[in-house]
Amino acid sequence: MATTEAVKARTLLGECSAEFAGTFILILFGVGVVAQVVAGGIGDHDSIAWAWGIGVTMGVYVSARISGAHINPAVTIALAAFRGFAWRKVLPYIGAQFLGAFAAALVVRWNYNEVLTKFDPDLGIKSQGVFSTLPGNGNVELGVGMWGGLLDQVIGTAILMLVILAIVDLRNTAPAANLGPFLIGLLVVGIGMAWGTLAGYAINPARDFGPRLASAITGYGGQAFKDQFGDPYFWVPIVGPIVGALIGAFLYDLLVGRHLPVGDADEEPGRVPEPETTA
Amino acid sequence: MATTEAVKARTLLGECSAEFAGTFILILFGVGVVAQVVAGGIGDHDSIAWAWGIGVTMGVYVSARISGAHINPAVTIALAAFRGFAWRKVLPYIGAQFLGAFAAALVVRWNYNEVLTKFDPDLGIKSQGVFSTLPGNGNVELGVGMWGGLLDQVIGTAILMLVILAIVDLRNTAPAANLGPFLIGLLVVGIGMAWGTLAGYAINPARDFGPRLASAITGYGGQAFKDQFGDPYFWVPIVGPIVGALIGAFLYDLLVGRHLPVGDADEEPGRVPEPETTA
Amino acid sequence: MATTEAVKARTLLGECSAEFAGTFILILFGVGVVAQVVAGGIGDHDSIAWAWGIGVTMGVYVSARISGAHINPAVTIALAAFRGFAWRKVLPYIGAQFLGAFAAALVVRWNYNEVLTKFDPDLGIKSQGVFSTLPGNGNVELGVGMWGGLLDQVIGTAILMLVILAIVDLRNTAPAANLGPFLIGLLVVGIGMAWGTLAGYAINPARDFGPRLASAITGYGGQAFKDQFGDPYFWVPIVGPIVGALIGAFLYDLLVGRHLPVGDADEEPGRVPEPETTA
Amino acid sequence: MATTEAVKARTLLGECSAEFAGTFILILFGVGVVAQVVAGGIGDHDSIAWAWGIGVTMGVYVSARISGAHINPAVTIALAAFRGFAWRKVLPYIGAQFLGAFAAALVVRWNYNEVLTKFDPDLGIKSQGVFSTLPGNGNVELGVGMWGGLLDQVIGTAILMLVILAIVDLRNTAPAANLGPFLIGLLVVGIGMAWGTLAGYAINPARDFGPRLASAITGYGGQAFKDQFGDPYFWVPIVGPIVGALIGAFLYDLLVGRHLPVGDADEEPGRVPEPETTA
Repeated sequence: MATTEAVKARTLLGECSAEFAGTFILILFGVGVVAQVVAGGIGDHDSIAWAWGIGVTMGVYVSARISGAHINPAVTIALAAFRGFAWRKVLPYIGAQFLGAFAAALVVRWNYNEVLTKFDPDLGIKSQGVFSTLPGNGNVELGVGMWGGLLDQVIGTAILMLVILAIVDLRNTAPAANLGPFLIGLLVVGIGMAWGTLAGYAINPARDFGPRLASAITGYGGQAFKDQFGDPYFWVPIVGPIVGALIGAFLYDLLVGRHLPVGDADEEPGRVPEPETTA
Repeated sequence: MATTEAVKARTLLGECSAEFAGTFILILFGVGVVAQVVAGGIGDHDSIAWAWGIGVTMGVYVSARISGAHINPAVTIALAAFRGFAWRKVLPYIGAQFLGAFAAALVVRWNYNEVLTKFDPDLGIKSQGVFSTLPGNGNVELGVGMWGGLLDQVIGTAILMLVILAIVDLRNTAPAANLGPFLIGLLVVGIGMAWGTLAGYAINPARDFGPRLASAITGYGGQAFKDQFGDPYFWVPIVGPIVGALIGAFLYDLLVGRHLPVGDADEEPGRVPEPETTA
Repeated sequence: MATTEAVKARTLLGECSAEFAGTFILILFGVGVVAQVVAGGIGDHDSIAWAWGIGVTMGVYVSARISGAHINPAVTIALAAFRGFAWRKVLPYIGAQFLGAFAAALVVRWNYNEVLTKFDPDLGIKSQGVFSTLPGNGNVELGVGMWGGLLDQVIGTAILMLVILAIVDLRNTAPAANLGPFLIGLLVVGIGMAWGTLAGYAINPARDFGPRLASAITGYGGQAFKDQFGDPYFWVPIVGPIVGALIGAFLYDLLVGRHLPVGDADEEPGRVPEPETTA
Repeated sequence: MATTEAVKARTLLGECSAEFAGTFILILFGVGVVAQVVAGGIGDHDSIAWAWGIGVTMGVYVSARISGAHINPAVTIALAAFRGFAWRKVLPYIGAQFLGAFAAALVVRWNYNEVLTKFDPDLGIKSQGVFSTLPGNGNVELGVGMWGGLLDQVIGTAILMLVILAIVDLRNTAPAANLGPFLIGLLVVGIGMAWGTLAGYAINPARDFGPRLASAITGYGGQAFKDQFGDPYFWVPIVGPIVGALIGAFLYDLLVGRHLPVGDADEEPGRVPEPETTA
């Protein structure tokens, strides 16, 4: 019926709006902290790890009830492949995630404009890492290039996805009291501290490409899509995370999921548990 | 009836007392940590971010049940504008918040007197940042002035308010088990790490003006109201946060709030959930 | 009846055993981390703040159900004065707390013996701060002496006690799900970051005097009871915290407690809430 | 009956699979962060403490429901000795834990290959600490050798086991809402900050020997089993933790366990509480 259609349409709009908002918040923290540390000179790599994690936690709290808080295209695709998330929603979700990340990066770009131009008057490779990731975080000495970054992104995102599925799996020991978002943020803190050397732990295509585009159109130009060696790099933090998330979801089901007791699974796969306080 | 009037009067007094106590605790941590890091030479910017966040958490635990734990005039005003918090309580709340921040800053000033006068015998711009915020945290090299600080404060407080509304929204995925105060503190940790470069993340007019006044009357004089360029700055961390909180609340409702299921909203808007253990 | 007497006796023994164990764990972390940072050269002041806080959290989890997890004589006295904790238990509790701290410091002293003697072959003022607090953390440059330390300890412990009473007050917004111990540890992290400059935030007479005695009898001698100026200092972290805890408890009741709704108070004052999972 | 046998066999397989997965996740974070800090030059000792703790938390969330999340042979043995965990499962569990740690270390070795060979072209003692522990973390100046490391490992693991038993003891104040894994991770953060000087806080034979073996077969050779003095060291982080865990479990029962009220004990000893959300 038309009514149902209208409701559904409104729902998908709402979900996309929530994904936009959640990713927007995530990137306000994530790109913000790198701007503060790299260009502002306040804090260090651990500040980056903590603030990204807090950004994830807050982005998930903002959007969890409406959209399930994917805020990451790799998560959306893996949930579609392994948890029955509707494929027809995948593209709208991903679009909203990119838009949210893009908009947030523009806000950081605007607010930190004076600081960025003081730090890097040419708006080039020196401050590109504020917005998007680079192999070896731009450090030429490490000797890490495109392929090292790709492997790293596959593994890092596999860890992310495997553990996310554990944290939200009600058949497992899922944190209750609506504290899943806190633990998922803590997970990202750990990934930043342990898996951030080779490719800056993008582990999220929207996190990387949205701000990359935002920097490209606000002064960084075409160089925004290359790494410090001049190679095209933008595709690495897109492809790596998607492949990694699929592997991580597969491994969770293989090693853990199929050994869990049946019958208590999520009622609606790929969605965080309903808030308990409204039950 | 007179009885009811008396009860109501006592209630508002209690609420103001709780707002005083909550803001008092917040500033004992917040101004205390900056004194320790800047004048005492112990810790770094991340210590500041963590201790401010912990101060928020503890200030909220102290006051949440009685007053709703605003402990921030910008939050009070935004809750009045967007959540039906009674306008007649706005001024008393704000007064209590300023008094609490003012009193706590005097306690820090007293306790750290030897350390402050050793570090900055002239009690001037060198240690002013212990008490109140400055553009670019007083760093002339960053090239950030009054207007950069204002924009930053609008954005930083918009983030604060948007996420607070998510965290306390029972229709959304609000943390249960009375852990909202912990998450709100973590939110402020993240803001300190990502949005603290341009204006020291006041994001709270009482946090800034109360200690500013306390420093002015205890040796810092009229300079306490100016920035490192000699410009009058005290109004920036008052106006910026109020505008920002209104924008953040508006954005939450626009992007998230109106897509949430109806009927489960807070019974009393602008108040943290009732403690679950007393149900 | 004799039976009841016997049961009571066993209970007090159990409570003292739990206080011993809780304080033992606290000091294994607390004195351990200072040994690691100061003598081992690993970590910095923030490591100290975090590990002390974690020590508090873990000490409380160990002892909470049996003894209420005071693990601090100042807390015990304040709970007796303001929450009806039985005065006849005060001395046994305090004795157990001192013993636990003393025993734990001996364990650290034993384990870190090689490292301590490498770092400070004379076992003197250079490494005394591993075990007990000093004015200005032993830094002569800060110009802080006995009286500055005393004021600081009064204030620091008042903050501790005021917020502890908020966190465990079931009439207020007490964290549920048995997470009070986590928040109390976080409180101590914040105190370490904001109130640790002038007197090393002893805020606990057992934490200070137990390890002080342990160091005195294992090579540090009578100097263990003095500060870096040769003044007798050992009484400051005993008297300051006790006075402070009483002030903090008084302020909580004045500013917050009397405005809370009646009838939902702790059934047994001065005790953490019963574990929810056994209800 | 055959059916029951089959079910049992599947269950033990499932438990071993979960132990494998949990330890795999633990080591991906743990060895990963040391690679990042030591070889990649990003972060410091506190990053190591945090990421190991987060690895524990995540490893426990992955495996808790199925296997009880021991992910540590010393814990498995202590639970068998003191909590009735079936001795016949001890060897399979330990085997799975070693395999998980071994496999994860290979993944880190693979991903960080470029970084490791840049940092330490000889693949020797300089980077051995990425994979396995050394006395004094390889620092010759500290003067710590095999026996100092052994004592340290006994004590450190005793702390770990004593507090784990407190955190999961439903008769005590066990964190509810399935947050035990978070607190156990925090416990390990604290141990890393306070008990990491003398022997790198292995506190887990699988954590140490699995990666040690992985490094030995991927270029480090026989030196992987020795310390910086050329002494055979590999047995220390195996024997020390097992002895320590037994002592810690004994002390918990002695000081705390026997004073707790009876009748509310874990239904199945050595297992984390059932997830509350599926009750």
